[in-house]
Order: sequence, then structure tokens, then C-alpha cells
Amino acid sequence: MGRETFWAEDPADLLRVGEGFRLAEVDTNGHPGFDGAKDDGAAALAEGAAVLNGLQEQLYANNVVTGDPRRVLLVLQAMDSAGKGGIVNHVMGAVDPQGVHLAAFKKPTPEELEHDFLWRIHKQVPSAGKIGVFDRSHYEDVLIARVRSLAPAEEIERRYGAINDFEAELAATGTSIIKVMLHISKDEQKARLGDRLARADKHWKFNPGDIDERERWGEYQQAYQLVFERTSTSEAPWYVVPADRKWYARLAVQHLLIDALESMALEWPKADFDVAEQQRRLAES
Amino acid sequence: MGRETFWAEDPADLLRVGEGFRLAEVDTNGHPGFDGAKDDGAAALAEGAAVLNGLQEQLYANNVVTGDPRRVLLVLQAMDSAGKGGIVNHVMGAVDPQGVHLAAFKKPTPEELEHDFLWRIHKQVPSAGKIGVFDRSHYEDVLIARVRSLAPAEEIERRYGAINDFEAELAATGTSIIKVMLHISKDEQKARLGDRLARADKHWKFNPGDIDERERWGEYQQAYQLVFERTSTSEAPWYVVPADRKWYARLAVQHLLIDALESMALEWPKADFDVAEQQRRLAES
Repeated sequence: MGRETFWAEDPADLLRVGEGFRLAEVDTNGHPGFDGAKDDGAAALAEGAAVLNGLQEQLYANNVVTGDPRRVLLVLQAMDSAGKGGIVNHVMGAVDPQGVHLAAFKKPTPEELEHDFLWRIHKQVPSAGKIGVFDRSHYEDVLIARVRSLAPAEEIERRYGAINDFEAELAATGTSIIKVMLHISKDEQKARLGDRLARADKHWKFNPGDIDERERWGEYQQAYQLVFERTSTSEAPWYVVPADRKWYARLAVQHLLIDALESMALEWPKADFDVAEQQRRLAES
Repeated sequence: MGRETFWAEDPADLLRVGEGFRLAEVDTNGHPGFDGAKDDGAAALAEGAAVLNGLQEQLYANNVVTGDPRRVLLVLQAMDSAGKGGIVNHVMGAVDPQGVHLAAFKKPTPEELEHDFLWRIHKQVPSAGKIGVFDRSHYEDVLIARVRSLAPAEEIERRYGAINDFEAELAATGTSIIKVMLHISKDEQKARLGDRLARADKHWKFNPGDIDERERWGEYQQAYQLVFERTSTSEAPWYVVPADRKWYARLAVQHLLIDALESMALEWPKADFDVAEQQRRLAES
């Protein structure tokens, strides 16, 4: 049975944020489109890893030989402990590191704060041929920035438009943008943070500030809802991925990446040299 | 049987460049210290992957909690097709991407050439807690630069000292430096380049310039010999890894990395907050 066996529908169609989307109505424990169980999901993920890796290599090869400008950008946003790190490790970790550009955005540094909010972001856009991953992103500047009033209200309003312009520019120059919110329930977060507190080898992943943010849960959900309404565009759509089941979230994000690459109709590039001539030269060398 | 079963001796001791080292005397087809066959090597590599990943996570955790400045830098140098990419993919690819910083140095750009040769290198030194990998490095500036006379002879002479100073500075500030030359025979390179030419899905990896460099094989070997004599120091030793057998080269480099991390005697860091207090806060949230 192939990796598509259990997919009744393409998750891209089921998870994409469209007109009238309401975050509050999403079942964080669901597994839309996938009819299998956890074990089936793990098997499908392993198969998909080889597919994703092969497609990325073709993308890279085309850039090397023909200067193909295409690239993929995966933006990951979520509440703490929703599994961004697991996506990076278990989905992107299966791709040759030479084809991946990972950027984790933390609290801005003083230098970063002296620039506009997209300054540090633009520098981390993946080069052609690669899959870039943003672990947090410019969306923090309309999420925590809104909830914590880190910028004036009119500046935050301005940012939605600036983000859409930025992403449209990236899309127009060859970037396939996939924006993912990993969506967990407040109860699931409590269980996961509790697990971090219960295990000495997980304490380093916990920060008391995580609970401060948790106490603003409702405000964050509203800020996300607004993000979806203002910035889910046809060139750069949002996907809300139920993430209470880690195996499903990983599989769904992998599928979104594979979809994006398959839609590029990649082939191995033709040699830009005379193969027979080079074989002669090699034989004589 | 554990991954150490087949290691009769630590490859670090066998492969380290010391006094009187002669590159010409190294058997590129050997597997020093490892008494098993290819299959045993593959099994040991898979086991080692989990060990390496676990150690890297501890290194990272210590940086997060205590600001531990330690990091690892793996420098990879080799003739074309010797397997640098395979090391990155199969050894480093097993480590969580969040803990790896990969930098591939290609022909310097005009901007890079307007700076000293270490300018672009220094910017890519891994941050604390990570394993950095240089796919090619500042050593190109005393290898191809020497063979192709890309800089005046006295400038190239100056660079050996500049490199030693640079690496001593990195070591003094917490960087464990492992410099690896993957060493293949000229015949093995011919076979590998021939394979690239024979397969349409490998053409993109071939460049006619590879044969130009191949024709300077002897000069490159001399340039490497000089590099070892001038820059293998106690803080930043060179290891020459026989690489005609890909499985051995990968296993040996993985072992060098594990050795470096094990020598740090890493433990999980203690929580820098009151665990019981945070558990109470979480329960109430």
C-alpha cells in the first residue's frame, strides 16, 4: 500500500483557510482526509520522506544547471508546545540538509528592533532550489505584538498590508509559500507543558513565560483569526493543521510540501555540456 | 552488539595527523580501526545517529539554560566526488536540523573578494550549542589558491598563520574543531565522475571544471600535505579519512563527532526555575 492509500482527500483542500473560516470551529484532535490510524500515519510519513527528498533534489538540480529561481518557503506558527520543533526534526530532518534553510525567529535583538519588522525576515528567505523553513516568522509582529501591545495599533494594522506585499513579491519571484498554523487545544498544551515539567531531560524546553502567554490564550486565538482574515491570499494561503495528534500534523505538513513540489512538474535538467566529450576527457585523465 | 563492537581502536587516534605524517602513504581504501564489513558499518552508523543526536541535544540544552558557550565545528575538505555531500546528508542529516549550521563555501563572490579571506568564514561559525559544518572552507584559500596561483605566494604563506590564529581563537572561546580531509584515490574519482556522466539524473552534479582540477591531482596532494604540516595543531587537528569506501568514511566522521561531544561530559542542565511553583501555575491556568 502506498502513502496515498489512506488519504481520502488532499489535505491541502481541507486545511486551506478560505472565506468564512473560523478558527474556533476547527477540531484540534481531528485528522482531516486521512482515514488511517497512527501506525499507518508513521508508515506514510516514512514513505513520504523519500518522495520529499527526491523532489527537493530535483528542484536543487534545476537551479544548479538552469538557474531555475523556484524555491519553497514553509512558515510555521503555533502556540507553545504545538510541535513546530517536531515538524522541523521529523519532516524537514528527512531532507538532505544541503537543500534546507532553517531560520528560527526569537525575540528581536536591539539591532533588529532598529529596523522595520521585515528586515530580519527578508535576510532569511531561502535561496533558489531550497526549502526554507521559518520557525516563527513576521507573523509574531502581528500576534504577540498585538496581544502584548508591543507596537501602536495603527502600526500593527499597517503590517498586515506590508506582509501581503512582501509575500506577493516573494511569490512573483518564484517562491511557493505555505503558511501553517499548528493548532492545539488549551488542554493539550497543558498536558504537554506538564510533561516538560515532569521530566528532568525536558526542563530546558520550559520557560515560565510560556504560562504567561498561555494565560492570554483567548487573545492569541483572536489574533490568529485576524491573521487568517487579513493575510490568507491565493499566492500565500494559510493552512490550519490540527495538531493534538503529532503524527497527523507531521504527515499533513509533509503532504503540503510534496503537493507544492509536485505542482512544479520537475524533471532532471539536461546536461549543459557534451556528455560524450567529457567522457573522453575523463578517460584520458 | 553495540556500535563499538567492531571498533578495535578509536579512529580519532588512528586518523589524526601527527608528526611526520605523509599523505602519500595513506591507503584510501582502508578502514582503520573498524574490523567489520560494510553491513556492520551501516548498522553502526544507524546506532551512532541516535547517540550523536542525543549528545547534540544536550549541548544545545546547556546553552539554552546556562549559556554554555561550547559548540562543534566540522571542517570538510576533499577532492571532487570524495563524499562531502554524503557526510552532510547521511551523518549530519541524522541530527535535528535545529542543532546544525551548515555552510557551503563556493567560489568567492566579488563582494567576498573585497574582504580578507576569513571574512566570509567567520560569519558562518556556528552559534553556541550547535554543530557547524563547513563544506569546503578557508582551506580553499591555501589549496586551489596555491595550485591555481590565485594569490601571491607570500600572501598564501601568510594565510597558514592567519588560519592557525583564527582557529586558536575559536578553540579558546569554546569551539571543538574537527578538520577532516576525505581521501580518495585518483582511480576512485575516475569511477565516480564516470558514474555521474553515465546517469542522466547525476549530470547536474558534474562540471567540466572537475576534470581540469583532476588534471592537477599531484599538485593538490602536495598542497594538502603542506596544509597538514602547517595547520594541524593540538587545538584544531586534521584527520585524514580514507574515503574510497563511503560507508567507512561516514562512520569514521560520525565517530569523531561523537568523541568530541562525549569528551564534553554533558549532562542535562538543571532547571533555572522552581519546578513545583511552575507546576502549580500550570494547574491553575
